[in-house]
Amino acid sequence: MTTPKIVYTLTDEAPALATYSLLPVVSSFTKAAEVEVVTSDISLAARVLASFPEHLSEEQRVADTLAELGELTKRPEANIIKLPNISASIPQLKACIQELQSQGYAIPNYVDEPKTDEEKDIQARYAKVLGSAVNPVLRQGNSDRRAPPAVKAYARKFPHSMGKWSKASRSHADYMREGDFFSSEQSITMDAAGDVRIEFVNQAGAVEVKKTLALQEGEVFDSMFMSAKALDAFFERTLQECKEDGVMWSLHVKATMMKVSHPIVFGHAVRTFFKEVFDQYGDLFNELGVNPNNGMASVYDKIKTLPQSKQDEIEEAIHACYEHRPEMAMVDSVKGITNLHIPSDVIVDASMPAMIRTSGQMWGRDGKQKDVKAVMPESTYARIYQEMINFCKTNGAFDPTTCGSVPNVGLMAMKAEEYGSHDKTFEMKEDGIMRVVKADGTVLMQHNVEKGDIWRACQTKDAAIKDWVKLAVNRARQSNTTAIFWLDAERAHDRELRKKVEVYLQEHDTNGLDIRVMGYNRAIRTSMERMIRGKDTISVTGNVLRDYLTDLFPIMELGTSAKMLSIVPMLAGGGMYETGAGGSAPKHVQQVLQENHLRWDSLGEFLAIAVSLDELGQKNNNARARILGQALDQATGKLLENNKSPSRKVGELDNRGSHFYLALYWAEALAAQTEDAALASKLKPVAQALQENEAKILEELSQVQGQPADLGGYYHLDQAKANQVMRPSVTLNSILDSLK
Amino acid sequence: MTTPKIVYTLTDEAPALATYSLLPVVSSFTKAAEVEVVTSDISLAARVLASFPEHLSEEQRVADTLAELGELTKRPEANIIKLPNISASIPQLKACIQELQSQGYAIPNYVDEPKTDEEKDIQARYAKVLGSAVNPVLRQGNSDRRAPPAVKAYARKFPHSMGKWSKASRSHADYMREGDFFSSEQSITMDAAGDVRIEFVNQAGAVEVKKTLALQEGEVFDSMFMSAKALDAFFERTLQECKEDGVMWSLHVKATMMKVSHPIVFGHAVRTFFKEVFDQYGDLFNELGVNPNNGMASVYDKIKTLPQSKQDEIEEAIHACYEHRPEMAMVDSVKGITNLHIPSDVIVDASMPAMIRTSGQMWGRDGKQKDVKAVMPESTYARIYQEMINFCKTNGAFDPTTCGSVPNVGLMAMKAEEYGSHDKTFEMKEDGIMRVVKADGTVLMQHNVEKGDIWRACQTKDAAIKDWVKLAVNRARQSNTTAIFWLDAERAHDRELRKKVEVYLQEHDTNGLDIRVMGYNRAIRTSMERMIRGKDTISVTGNVLRDYLTDLFPIMELGTSAKMLSIVPMLAGGGMYETGAGGSAPKHVQQVLQENHLRWDSLGEFLAIAVSLDELGQKNNNARARILGQALDQATGKLLENNKSPSRKVGELDNRGSHFYLALYWAEALAAQTEDAALASKLKPVAQALQENEAKILEELSQVQGQPADLGGYYHLDQAKANQVMRPSVTLNSILDSLK
Repeated sequence: MTTPKIVYTLTDEAPALATYSLLPVVSSFTKAAEVEVVTSDISLAARVLASFPEHLSEEQRVADTLAELGELTKRPEANIIKLPNISASIPQLKACIQELQSQGYAIPNYVDEPKTDEEKDIQARYAKVLGSAVNPVLRQGNSDRRAPPAVKAYARKFPHSMGKWSKASRSHADYMREGDFFSSEQSITMDAAGDVRIEFVNQAGAVEVKKTLALQEGEVFDSMFMSAKALDAFFERTLQECKEDGVMWSLHVKATMMKVSHPIVFGHAVRTFFKEVFDQYGDLFNELGVNPNNGMASVYDKIKTLPQSKQDEIEEAIHACYEHRPEMAMVDSVKGITNLHIPSDVIVDASMPAMIRTSGQMWGRDGKQKDVKAVMPESTYARIYQEMINFCKTNGAFDPTTCGSVPNVGLMAMKAEEYGSHDKTFEMKEDGIMRVVKADGTVLMQHNVEKGDIWRACQTKDAAIKDWVKLAVNRARQSNTTAIFWLDAERAHDRELRKKVEVYLQEHDTNGLDIRVMGYNRAIRTSMERMIRGKDTISVTGNVLRDYLTDLFPIMELGTSAKMLSIVPMLAGGGMYETGAGGSAPKHVQQVLQENHLRWDSLGEFLAIAVSLDELGQKNNNARARILGQALDQATGKLLENNKSPSRKVGELDNRGSHFYLALYWAEALAAQTEDAALASKLKPVAQALQENEAKILEELSQVQGQPADLGGYYHLDQAKANQVMRPSVTLNSILDSLK
Repeated sequence: MTTPKIVYTLTDEAPALATYSLLPVVSSFTKAAEVEVVTSDISLAARVLASFPEHLSEEQRVADTLAELGELTKRPEANIIKLPNISASIPQLKACIQELQSQGYAIPNYVDEPKTDEEKDIQARYAKVLGSAVNPVLRQGNSDRRAPPAVKAYARKFPHSMGKWSKASRSHADYMREGDFFSSEQSITMDAAGDVRIEFVNQAGAVEVKKTLALQEGEVFDSMFMSAKALDAFFERTLQECKEDGVMWSLHVKATMMKVSHPIVFGHAVRTFFKEVFDQYGDLFNELGVNPNNGMASVYDKIKTLPQSKQDEIEEAIHACYEHRPEMAMVDSVKGITNLHIPSDVIVDASMPAMIRTSGQMWGRDGKQKDVKAVMPESTYARIYQEMINFCKTNGAFDPTTCGSVPNVGLMAMKAEEYGSHDKTFEMKEDGIMRVVKADGTVLMQHNVEKGDIWRACQTKDAAIKDWVKLAVNRARQSNTTAIFWLDAERAHDRELRKKVEVYLQEHDTNGLDIRVMGYNRAIRTSMERMIRGKDTISVTGNVLRDYLTDLFPIMELGTSAKMLSIVPMLAGGGMYETGAGGSAPKHVQQVLQENHLRWDSLGEFLAIAVSLDELGQKNNNARARILGQALDQATGKLLENNKSPSRKVGELDNRGSHFYLALYWAEALAAQTEDAALASKLKPVAQALQENEAKILEELSQVQGQPADLGGYYHLDQAKANQVMRPSVTLNSILDSLK
């Protein structure tokens, strides 16, 4: 057996920069446990370079580390710490290419409209680098997210603000009572592997195959549709009710995740709210290429080509709608950006927790907080928000100083439950029948649809479900916590899953565990009842609820979802520890370039490393690795408690100073532990040296701040320069070196 | 074995009068099944006469029928139809005595302040007749209440009005979060029979025995207290919140049932709302004998003796309170009667369903419906109303045309769970300790109390619980309906009951039944979820919830609780069938005396007789009795469907006409049934005769209306005269006679 390894990913921007400072600390400490920390560069620049080996010199060539990492995820020893990376847009990619070229890498330019075969080949290679290219390769498992004890302790000690709830609040969630995906959902489990066709049959009987899919044995396959008429009627009703009740109107969808279905839903809301405008100028808007699915921004953008008088006329018509419609929630009341401006501004999993945290209110045009009707067409998920709103009206806002936690075990592996994603979602162009047909012609499911209806299908593989159940049982056991499977007996898809869960639960030792299966309303209610009594409850959910709940509960408990421990226990047995829900923070890098202050908070990395060490220790019977991990958790706790996280202001403690304190507390914790006397005595002098040199090290770290820093690049840093910038304390460096 | 008998009680006022018309119909029909219907006079007059045999002549003497009936309840063959009777106040008793004396009964006068031994003896005998003297003797069992199918069908066909709920309603229930009975409740189960003492120990250590009770083995005994300080703080908070939120304030207690504790609670509300008035005029009010527990009416009443200028001053001070307090819900906005006027005006089990049925609103001073904070200090029960309010906000008002039913099986036998009744409830006169002590000095429970706190204890006998569980299982089996025991694991008393229920359920065959045990919130939520899906759910509850729920759900489902079938299956095996939740209706008798129109609706009697016949048939293998009962239910259904209930207006169909239709439909149903051909052929001519003479009979019945009627008495009717008034149709009488 080889030395157990932790793979630490090198990514982009702030987290990558912070790694120059953090990794030396980590490597020094882990060496003591004979744990090797290796790096894997999956930055945008590395991925670009790996795509064009033949354009590069021998020395310039880099391996396809992402592919290698993808292979590693299929091996049980995988232990990967995954930092946030750039999901590159085309402008970002072009900037990266330009930088690499300027550094002497002879890679080709990006071609917007390729013509030659060569150009087409180049574009195809770049296409693989664009967008969300990393997660699909690495996320080979389900999801396990929880608040680490140190973070929870911090929230209890330094609670975030929570808006008081009035028992007389008028706020509520509203959702469709008929005609939505929930009402029409059908679900089957494949008794044998086989192809299915998704077909549309028009009223003349013509059959169009929209898609053919190869399904596995035991795979759960769903289909459902949302009626466009019912959706429009629903929006109109909510607007009327808001007008009558004097309550502000707001829309909450997830256009980013449900990439195809939810922009269409959003478009219906736009057309309903501004009905008179679209009635009057519909033809003109079509000519101009206005797309209501892109929000009112699209209208304002496209009408710019019109004469000013026509623009004024349309804007007056828009204004007239505002006059007779209820007040609408604002995204930015200062800039006049409403809830219907662009579809990606208001994302339900972020907007609803924010609303609930803010006394159930949102901001009106006058910049004041107001009670609101939160309109969420899909009743499947909207009900949980209404349940929480009712709960807050009854019991008041959650109290971060006393409340329990709701960690999540989410079904995600093998693209499980990817609703509304682009390849199986269709907007109906005419009336007819949508059906799912087996290769032999057997019709498995069918729906009568009308023009404009949104039909979608969804796959969930048996192996993913099986693993999810195992993960839930393991998590319940390891955390010694009640676990609730959120599966609604009234929902077709969930009925199929309930059957499987029942079977798969029997494959595990659940003795002494409290594992329950409930519908969503009861599940969230039970979790909240336990939460306000200080008890933890694991939510074991499908993919969408995973996404929603890992924001909802953390925001109540911790004020943010960024501090959650986010683990992907891989199907093959390995583990990936994800960090930084906040993205790769380009603004932070700008601040370093301008004034050499890095405000990136490496808390997510601290937490991930600790759990990675613990996992590695468990798997390899390496007690020392576990001790290291536990000590790191203690150090993180102390760091939070003493408020040694980076400040936003130049001259104050930054990312590097925070890492010094982590090293200090980690060394102290290791020196103080009694399980491993040899380790303790090894760390004692380090702890002492760090204590004694605290002032000196801080001085060395802070004196570099305030002037521009040279990193030798943005996408592809000069390693020597970056090292110099990120490790300015000779004293700290030499103490760390003493551990090697 | 003797002929099975149904005992039909003769009581007072309208129901007694209606019996003159109804009973001949019933007796004629039951004779056909060899079922004897006998009467038992438990009217106030009969009970008075039975108390003074030595004052009466031989012929005038009557038996103590109530005592006889009490004895009958202890025998398995008991089958009693109990109509509403007068719970006599002293003025009513005096009027009754005077009437009897005028009829030649030489009974003694009531003596308000007895001096001689003879007078004391007289007063003692009259005391036994006063107040609620009948129910405690007859209610020897638990309670079984449900909506009969005919009534449910009527409600579905002719739904009562239900106020629409706004999702943005501000209405809510509010209750104490600490310091109430729920928070302090302690409960024990006696492992052996024995005496316990309720003692108060003051701060000097002096022990006062407040009460000694002989407890049975297995009896559950609870104690609890409500903190006066917490109660005042709670009222003040609710008032502040209403003021801030602009929501109307209302109080909902049950001063009539919780006779001792809740008037005190009410008094605290009065003193908090009108704090400045009581602060300023407290001493004066004490002198005058103002008792805030009797409401503001007591203030207005007592200050009448003051000079006008002083009265004006006090009224101004009261007015000033109204100015700075939130708006208060009105009992009668026209007369200016507020929620705090007298404690018996607003009774939670009636006021809350009314509020929920009225869009969650109550009436303000301006006579307009408004959203309201429903203040109910006891969190034990208030939570169910908040749950229903949240449910209505989310799902809209209940729909009587589709909703399911929530019948009740209530724990009531052997004075179970009589909370706040007078003999075990105490208002603390000073700080100290209240404790429950066994004869050997062992302290079973104790509470630190402060002056003003309300301490109370409660008994629940094992035999009653055992019977209640049996009744629940039987009801679940007979109705083939899911049953939920409402027992809250977080409540001390309920934890004791849960243990017993678990054990006693095993004594029954529950195979194939769906019997669940839940806390109140989940129980009501589950029941409501099922209800809106058209499903029935039996609520199996303690005594207070029995009282509350048998109003709450019927009012949603049927618009009234008066149409419920109300059965007391006696511990000894017999049954009592109670009718008429609406009391004995003195106003109805006035109308008869003035214009010979009786608007009393005998629906409750029809339902009770049917179930009494069915029960008797089952017990005695008398198929014909069961057929009679089933036919009566059909007849009742048809009567409701054809709207042949009594009208309120003279000249229209009254109680007697309604009885004609009952006879007609009953005869038709019996003639049409095929189970018993002999019975059918016997009834066929009766049905035909009634059909043919419909117009004639109605004419005979209606022509007597419009002029005064002579009944020869009010409390003690002249039987011949009453017969003449109530049976004016010669044609109907002779058709009925033909059955004998």
